[in-house]
Amino acid sequence: MAGNSFGQLFRITTFGESHGVAIGVIIDGCPAQLDIDMDFIQSELDKRKPGQSKITTQRKESDTVQILSGVFEGKSTGTPIALLIPNEDQRSKDYGHNVDVYRPSHADYVYDAKYGIRDHRGGGRSSARETAARVAAGAIAKLFLKQQGIEIFAHVTSVGTIEAPNLESNDLSALLQIREENIVRCADPATAHEMVEFIDAVRKDGDTVGGKIGCVVRGCPAGLGEPVFDKLHADLGKAMLSINAVHGFEYGSGFAGSELRGSQHNDIPQPKAADSKVFKTTTNYAGGILGGISNGMDITFKVAFKPVATIMHNQQTINAAGEVSEIKGKGRHDPCVVPRAVVIVEAMAALVLADQFLRNKASII
Amino acid sequence: MAGNSFGQLFRITTFGESHGVAIGVIIDGCPAQLDIDMDFIQSELDKRKPGQSKITTQRKESDTVQILSGVFEGKSTGTPIALLIPNEDQRSKDYGHNVDVYRPSHADYVYDAKYGIRDHRGGGRSSARETAARVAAGAIAKLFLKQQGIEIFAHVTSVGTIEAPNLESNDLSALLQIREENIVRCADPATAHEMVEFIDAVRKDGDTVGGKIGCVVRGCPAGLGEPVFDKLHADLGKAMLSINAVHGFEYGSGFAGSELRGSQHNDIPQPKAADSKVFKTTTNYAGGILGGISNGMDITFKVAFKPVATIMHNQQTINAAGEVSEIKGKGRHDPCVVPRAVVIVEAMAALVLADQFLRNKASII
Amino acid sequence: MAGNSFGQLFRITTFGESHGVAIGVIIDGCPAQLDIDMDFIQSELDKRKPGQSKITTQRKESDTVQILSGVFEGKSTGTPIALLIPNEDQRSKDYGHNVDVYRPSHADYVYDAKYGIRDHRGGGRSSARETAARVAAGAIAKLFLKQQGIEIFAHVTSVGTIEAPNLESNDLSALLQIREENIVRCADPATAHEMVEFIDAVRKDGDTVGGKIGCVVRGCPAGLGEPVFDKLHADLGKAMLSINAVHGFEYGSGFAGSELRGSQHNDIPQPKAADSKVFKTTTNYAGGILGGISNGMDITFKVAFKPVATIMHNQQTINAAGEVSEIKGKGRHDPCVVPRAVVIVEAMAALVLADQFLRNKASII
Amino acid sequence: MAGNSFGQLFRITTFGESHGVAIGVIIDGCPAQLDIDMDFIQSELDKRKPGQSKITTQRKESDTVQILSGVFEGKSTGTPIALLIPNEDQRSKDYGHNVDVYRPSHADYVYDAKYGIRDHRGGGRSSARETAARVAAGAIAKLFLKQQGIEIFAHVTSVGTIEAPNLESNDLSALLQIREENIVRCADPATAHEMVEFIDAVRKDGDTVGGKIGCVVRGCPAGLGEPVFDKLHADLGKAMLSINAVHGFEYGSGFAGSELRGSQHNDIPQPKAADSKVFKTTTNYAGGILGGISNGMDITFKVAFKPVATIMHNQQTINAAGEVSEIKGKGRHDPCVVPRAVVIVEAMAALVLADQFLRNKASII
Repeated sequence: MAGNSFGQLFRITTFGESHGVAIGVIIDGCPAQLDIDMDFIQSELDKRKPGQSKITTQRKESDTVQILSGVFEGKSTGTPIALLIPNEDQRSKDYGHNVDVYRPSHADYVYDAKYGIRDHRGGGRSSARETAARVAAGAIAKLFLKQQGIEIFAHVTSVGTIEAPNLESNDLSALLQIREENIVRCADPATAHEMVEFIDAVRKDGDTVGGKIGCVVRGCPAGLGEPVFDKLHADLGKAMLSINAVHGFEYGSGFAGSELRGSQHNDIPQPKAADSKVFKTTTNYAGGILGGISNGMDITFKVAFKPVATIMHNQQTINAAGEVSEIKGKGRHDPCVVPRAVVIVEAMAALVLADQFLRNKASII
Repeated sequence: MAGNSFGQLFRITTFGESHGVAIGVIIDGCPAQLDIDMDFIQSELDKRKPGQSKITTQRKESDTVQILSGVFEGKSTGTPIALLIPNEDQRSKDYGHNVDVYRPSHADYVYDAKYGIRDHRGGGRSSARETAARVAAGAIAKLFLKQQGIEIFAHVTSVGTIEAPNLESNDLSALLQIREENIVRCADPATAHEMVEFIDAVRKDGDTVGGKIGCVVRGCPAGLGEPVFDKLHADLGKAMLSINAVHGFEYGSGFAGSELRGSQHNDIPQPKAADSKVFKTTTNYAGGILGGISNGMDITFKVAFKPVATIMHNQQTINAAGEVSEIKGKGRHDPCVVPRAVVIVEAMAALVLADQFLRNKASII
Repeated sequence: MAGNSFGQLFRITTFGESHGVAIGVIIDGCPAQLDIDMDFIQSELDKRKPGQSKITTQRKESDTVQILSGVFEGKSTGTPIALLIPNEDQRSKDYGHNVDVYRPSHADYVYDAKYGIRDHRGGGRSSARETAARVAAGAIAKLFLKQQGIEIFAHVTSVGTIEAPNLESNDLSALLQIREENIVRCADPATAHEMVEFIDAVRKDGDTVGGKIGCVVRGCPAGLGEPVFDKLHADLGKAMLSINAVHGFEYGSGFAGSELRGSQHNDIPQPKAADSKVFKTTTNYAGGILGGISNGMDITFKVAFKPVATIMHNQQTINAAGEVSEIKGKGRHDPCVVPRAVVIVEAMAALVLADQFLRNKASII
Repeated sequence: MAGNSFGQLFRITTFGESHGVAIGVIIDGCPAQLDIDMDFIQSELDKRKPGQSKITTQRKESDTVQILSGVFEGKSTGTPIALLIPNEDQRSKDYGHNVDVYRPSHADYVYDAKYGIRDHRGGGRSSARETAARVAAGAIAKLFLKQQGIEIFAHVTSVGTIEAPNLESNDLSALLQIREENIVRCADPATAHEMVEFIDAVRKDGDTVGGKIGCVVRGCPAGLGEPVFDKLHADLGKAMLSINAVHGFEYGSGFAGSELRGSQHNDIPQPKAADSKVFKTTTNYAGGILGGISNGMDITFKVAFKPVATIMHNQQTINAAGEVSEIKGKGRHDPCVVPRAVVIVEAMAALVLADQFLRNKASII
């Protein structure tokens, strides 16, 4: 109930503060006999770790993952998988000046309001560091989904007002390779170049900027998702909105779909091809989900991230006594979160799909 | 797990198909000693019921609610409150032609794929009729929240490309009165007039159109929401995305916020006024929520609805055998769902807030 | 959280007070395509209903069940199944004298302490009438289990100090037939006769008496139950202890097993027979469950019921003001609950097994 | 759903195998601002650790607990508290002979049946080692309850057929001191002496023996527990039955109560004393719980443990191929679990009470 768990059958619980000993995650409900590829889990974490490039925070953490339980001779045993990521760079002195001051657009004040106590050494649980635990767990969910033929691919579709065109290629592995060749993680190389330049300029200004990430899930069978409250896109939406800095979620036609007419928006089904288990539709405004249940087409959604609140400018704020104060720009923060958030979006999507995959096993016996 | 329940401490479970005997809802966890105003519950249902005006479906249902349990001498007793809404207008013959045909952009096919069986008399659980149960339960959540000084107000902000300007007045009761004076439920009378004309024209075309609803929650204390997965806006997002036809959710600065810089987006806190329990900020890009926890400012969000899939045109589709078929436009459907969905948005918001209010009681003892 | 739901994947939520309009239950998670035999459900309810014989309460309720949703053309559709049992005999005047008096060993006082309000017309939710909803839902769980080859049989093993010998026959259908031939529901006819005489004498004394029910689950595959907190016997124990008047639960060797040595208590496995999927053991002290997981042997457990608190004698008690008062023996109550509770024990066992059966589907993919 | 979590609002998740790197527990929902006394937590673990005395296993583990998160400057922050207990004595060679052999009355076979894979180095999750995590979490629950004036005391009431008389003193602190003065943890010194002699003799025989533990909860306010499925005693029963080797649970009058008449069993309330918030009753057959809700009297229950299955005798068994095999007595196991289980019983009781205490906050606002 305190909200540190996610999922029902494939269920994770995360713990740990940014400036404590370690962070970690328990995965309860990973099916037995899954090959647990530790190199893959680490490589996913490496995509999220700080200090990767000039457009991410210069804080250094290797984010090395250890496995404490639930795996025997390389395979899951059906028991809880505990993953631990020790904290290395706990420079809490960076935060010493924040003991009594509420940083603008940070969670400092609301933690005090809710709990009457606050770990002022850093963001605590509200730090994006918590998402490393999600990436580790999401990597295991991806391994499970891969076994079922389900692939997930996300990339940066916009930074500020710079927007990538629709992708030409449709081969997810090829796109992944293109995406990983640039530090902003946009699968359109020309736009990627423009984005990197822009973020770097923003960083030099001591400022930050928001962006958007688009995601595709391919190979999902028809039937995943529960029809009323736990619609597949409702669970995906909650998953994305639970990521730090996310302010919006849309799937399929999204916000733009609200401007269309039914005669434009309906996706017309095609006769089933001999080699296909599902019907294809000529368009995919539905984003692969009808009535909350996957229909076998690509699942598509987009996530909007606000700009990071920590800027290198002096800003007016208040202290715990409610008096006007000034906060000076300091610390080591990302000028734009989306390059590191791509793998978080994929991880959360994987957790939702693994969970709904298992839940769907109970629909018919 | 089958997803017909919502909420943790203030928890509802809905049941019933569009063409069955009745629909209904159990509310488990409504605190004891709350005054249950049945007239208010009915008046909320009346705002959602079909047949209200020329721009809604002409299907007739009085949606009369009965109370089966949990209330004694007008007050909640702490035991489950069961509310029943009998179905009156079960003209399933309207749907007889759909036994073997999958309607475009409907859930017919995915129900067959998931369950291997489908109640083809109508939309079954995927019918928007299910939302009447949510409105009834949401009305009780509103009564609870009102007792705590929390108000919720939603209205139609766009239909197709017709967009209402930002509201001038800020008095929610006054806005509610204006909203209820027009059949499209937009609190800007001039835009409302334009919207009604447009929907009526779309209806005469046999077509449908999407729209958006904006919502404000006022009077929410600081501290509601759980910091990691069950962030207040993540729960609100899931609640909204679980409503039929919703394709997008954003709060505070939303998608537009992704285009801003941190120096523009940060909300600067003001010194606490003598008569206030919370800090106010000069702007409210945060939408009243920081780190997933309410900060005492207005909570603001927006919801995008796609156009209704049932149109009065003939469309190509396929049948259960996978062969091309044609579906003829028939039945009695809404040309645009947003006028009737305003009260559903408010109900789901109320359910989230009541739940998080109770959950927050466990944060400190 | 308010505790009116039971089960995770096969999940029920009950509602309704003894003196309200109706009681009922929602079953969320019943797999699709199950044949729903309404006659069977009603026949199960008939075994629990009041007024069956001279040794049960003389209150009359036909307990006629109606189905509101979730079944189409005789089969479950995968959507919530709502069952309603209207209350007929709401003679609340029998209880008028209890408004201000706390009946000894009843829940009157604790409801006031917990909720500050109490439906004093009768037992409200603490009335055993609530268990009718469990029996209706349990009947559907039994239909599901029967499809999987799992049978459940319970009978009265003791009333007061009258104890039935161990059953000679091992054919559950035959035992069921014997059990239903006597009004106390003990599968040993001689003991049954003695029990009936004794209960009738107790009733004439205006007194009540406790008893025990034994239960066997046969045909359960190995693998059901989760290894740590949700052990199969822990879930069964909770299920049984949630039935009104139950004060004890034991499985396999039970309390007596605590007096044995390991060399006596260990069940020695036999080589697997060619026609068997499981290993048999020479003894079954384990009660069919090892480490919380079924091993394929018969699951056996026993449940102890205290005597009914309502007696026809005058008793000293106190009123809401805390003053000494006297309560007069009145009303229509059971002299012994076990004959009517046999089917409740079976229903709760069925709900646990159906739930764990579905949960086990997620153990390996 | 995989059953490694317990509790709703005060919720724990345990992980770790007996022969892995470490075991541990996450506590999600511990209220903020609680003083976390690490010495107390360690002292509780010391009561459960192996190698304490001649009548426990000679395996050596210091069971030293580390805190990873959720505590700042000695106080809980409201975020998840992660506790880690590294495994020291991982002599898996003791178990090498068990790879293909199913030990009688162990969970080896059912793990294979359920998961198709088994960590054969030891008991894995079915090892009683898992309970160390419960004791650590339970210690924090005890700290929380102590703040609310709630005390928990358990002791060994029987070993084999040696039964302690009812306790003369009623001062729980005094009893605790007496209990800790003997190695069997029985609060009656004469019986304790007899029990120790008996267990030692059983151990020399290479055999094991069962026993019972009784528990009292004092100072619990009236109102804890939910009236239908989550009755206070049903949650306590599930908690106890989830402990390794437990085969029975009874509360208040228990199994013996099933032999009584209502006129004997009813607890007569006394006028409320001026200095008391609750009514006292002359007797306490109810065990402090009516209708599933605490009434303010002592909560009393008893738990039965079967004998440990590992004995130092050779036993016939089968191997994974289903062939007859022999298992030789080896290893370092407890001749009787009850002395070390006393603190586990208390821990699980504390977890139930802390959870129901928080849940009860939502009953009235």
